[in-house]
Amino acid sequence: MAQIDATHDPRRQSWVTSANGHPDFPIQNLPLGVFSPGGSTLRRGGVAIGDMIFDLRAGVEASLFTGAARDAADKASSWALNAVLALGVEPRRALRQQLVEILDVAAPGGAPSDDLYRRLLHPMDQCVLYLPAHIGDYTDFYAGIHHATNVGQQFRPDNPLLPNYKYVPIGYHGRASSIVPSGTPIRRPWGQSKPADAAEPCFAPSRRLDYELELGIWIGPGNDLGAPIPIAEADRHIAGFCLLNDWSARDVQAWESQPLGPFLSKSFATTISPWIVTPEALAPFAMAQARRPQDDPLPPSYLLDRKDQRAGALDIALEVLLLTQEMRDTGQPPARVGLSHARHIYWTPGQLVAHHTSGGCNLRPGDLLGTGTISGPDRDGCGSLLEATKGGRDPLRLPTLEERRFLEDADEVMLRARTVSRSGFAPIGFGECKGRIVAAHSSSVSRGERDREATG
Amino acid sequence: MAQIDATHDPRRQSWVTSANGHPDFPIQNLPLGVFSPGGSTLRRGGVAIGDMIFDLRAGVEASLFTGAARDAADKASSWALNAVLALGVEPRRALRQQLVEILDVAAPGGAPSDDLYRRLLHPMDQCVLYLPAHIGDYTDFYAGIHHATNVGQQFRPDNPLLPNYKYVPIGYHGRASSIVPSGTPIRRPWGQSKPADAAEPCFAPSRRLDYELELGIWIGPGNDLGAPIPIAEADRHIAGFCLLNDWSARDVQAWESQPLGPFLSKSFATTISPWIVTPEALAPFAMAQARRPQDDPLPPSYLLDRKDQRAGALDIALEVLLLTQEMRDTGQPPARVGLSHARHIYWTPGQLVAHHTSGGCNLRPGDLLGTGTISGPDRDGCGSLLEATKGGRDPLRLPTLEERRFLEDADEVMLRARTVSRSGFAPIGFGECKGRIVAAHSSSVSRGERDREATG
Repeated sequence: MAQIDATHDPRRQSWVTSANGHPDFPIQNLPLGVFSPGGSTLRRGGVAIGDMIFDLRAGVEASLFTGAARDAADKASSWALNAVLALGVEPRRALRQQLVEILDVAAPGGAPSDDLYRRLLHPMDQCVLYLPAHIGDYTDFYAGIHHATNVGQQFRPDNPLLPNYKYVPIGYHGRASSIVPSGTPIRRPWGQSKPADAAEPCFAPSRRLDYELELGIWIGPGNDLGAPIPIAEADRHIAGFCLLNDWSARDVQAWESQPLGPFLSKSFATTISPWIVTPEALAPFAMAQARRPQDDPLPPSYLLDRKDQRAGALDIALEVLLLTQEMRDTGQPPARVGLSHARHIYWTPGQLVAHHTSGGCNLRPGDLLGTGTISGPDRDGCGSLLEATKGGRDPLRLPTLEERRFLEDADEVMLRARTVSRSGFAPIGFGECKGRIVAAHSSSVSRGERDREATG
Repeated sequence: MAQIDATHDPRRQSWVTSANGHPDFPIQNLPLGVFSPGGSTLRRGGVAIGDMIFDLRAGVEASLFTGAARDAADKASSWALNAVLALGVEPRRALRQQLVEILDVAAPGGAPSDDLYRRLLHPMDQCVLYLPAHIGDYTDFYAGIHHATNVGQQFRPDNPLLPNYKYVPIGYHGRASSIVPSGTPIRRPWGQSKPADAAEPCFAPSRRLDYELELGIWIGPGNDLGAPIPIAEADRHIAGFCLLNDWSARDVQAWESQPLGPFLSKSFATTISPWIVTPEALAPFAMAQARRPQDDPLPPSYLLDRKDQRAGALDIALEVLLLTQEMRDTGQPPARVGLSHARHIYWTPGQLVAHHTSGGCNLRPGDLLGTGTISGPDRDGCGSLLEATKGGRDPLRLPTLEERRFLEDADEVMLRARTVSRSGFAPIGFGECKGRIVAAHSSSVSRGERDREATG
């Protein structure tokens, strides 16, 4: 994990006044993203600060950056952030330090002129946010041990965790093309499934649509094919974190997954939060890897590093919120349906990176890893409906007295991540990761009609 | 499948004399690829013709193309062919027709001048060949029914095929970053595995390294997220085919694959042949999908199309050749260790495309699908050592009297694909798909030392 320095001073305030006390984006956070401002479709890199986005292209043009930070800002002002992710720790830290100096209320020149302010800052609610980088490959792990236990329990009540679980980080390759930024509507997918009592499978809209609460890990500098990243260096290859909702069609998943794992049940869409929260911003919230039960094996030596064990995990609280049509109609707030914590990830982000490359597989800047669903040990902590409803047998009761076994059309799922408060540090958050379910296509419409419907 | 036209005339000869009677690249084939000629590192698009590569950039500069073919040639002259793949059938056919006219021995202007010839044609053995496109996502199917049966038999002798197999095309997402072109050395990977008699897993170089004989399917025009490709249109989204060797570490695979499927056991490397053999070139070798046993279910209706059933499969013979160090030292030819045929793929390429998008997943131009290992019904037809040696229990005896259970260091595996001869048509082939195993890194060397070793 990164060092703590003056950029983390909790007393620091910004002349972007909405940043001061902002739950997600105070001046101590400064995550990177890609946006287009209102009235433009030109994508460029930016930094979230309060309710505003700082335009890095405009900052470079106004000569606000110098040295390594200038180069990093220039690369981070692009329509995709892969080039700045590839730079690694030091240039990213230099950029952060100059951004803090520029945005600080006590900046030498003070707040910018009205004209410069308008060029530098765009109201976030008038901007469109995009995927922050071109994602070459997306890998989804299964490192949430309570999730693996809960799901395993449904199949093997006496022996929920498979024998390999505590030795080898379980993961699989996901679909990169269908990763979408927060806010993109999620079309209920069609798929093959076979109810237990049916003689033959059917092809129909999924009836067991679910979310999965995950963190995403953005890869910074990559590695060459055949050159594994040692665990002691793994943190230097992580460029940041986001929220990730691994939408899942459980009925399709149950039918298609043997023997090669989930495929179309996951690849119809994956939603991520659009801001890359850097390891530098999260430095004060580093924590030791959770102590394992005494009977658990030690991590294998290629995944064992003292620094990583001591400070490789993250002190981040995670929530799932659900907003139904009835809540929307009656002006009620979304209901929290899951409260979890990143400590329930069995492997550190560094261990996931080191394992991924341990056989020689190459990671590239902008690759994305998902942690797997992060559930807590109790029902309130479930990161998916599959777990919270015990496979749909025991529905959730919402404050509106509605019940949910799986997601219904017009349901909106919002994930949230906030650092746990630590004395001496300003808490930060990840911003929005949400998606609303839209009805499946009817089978009979032509593709042209479907396209109009989707954009209408 | 594409139409048969005058470009398929088997009597047609080229002024590139090595093309006439060439087993892979006669004038009737004309596959697309990306290369750099001897003495240059500048990548550009080209066409294989006999022992030569036709330089599309030079062809465009010499104004050899007109109309839609000119645009296609321009896009196909790039360092990656995604833009020409995106164009689809008609521009690709226009390019093929003009290429045939240009290269025909009876071309109006005859063979080009010596000077133009030198600019247009490069000896293939002096060129470097690259991946022909940027691969956004790579999906590997499991559509070789004898492979699925052979592998299933090792786990479930009485019931080798799982209940879903004949209803839903089984597939999983593979790793795009580690796909390499033919000729790239394959480093034996380290990985976790657990011998049946061991109490704990070990992390060591794989001792059960294997190949898998597959065809690759290049995606042409893609589809939007949420807009499935109907089976009747699926063939128009296929831009071509290649050979694909899905290298597999069986010991790692057995330990890591539950419950989410293969991961690092496959993602250390995948070798493909560098030439995109187009559907137009393969048009004369279209065949009906193999008749299924009477007890098999009909394909589900979203995968059933008369035209696809009648002509969606490929009449291609497939071979695996193995060259050991001893064969090399004693001047012996490689031994054939597998002879199979594309008819053993249970689903047509069109069915794989339609299924992949049936839940809304988007394909992009340059995405790659693997068919899965294509084994024949007999031991001679096995597309992997896992099958041919029954899990390593029954070694293959080679002509040198060497035995193989799995691959040894310095073994070179070569895949071959040739159309089955049809009266009235010139057979064509796919070119080289080979890779030689190099020894695993020793565990103790540093990364720097490893890198020098790898490039030394």
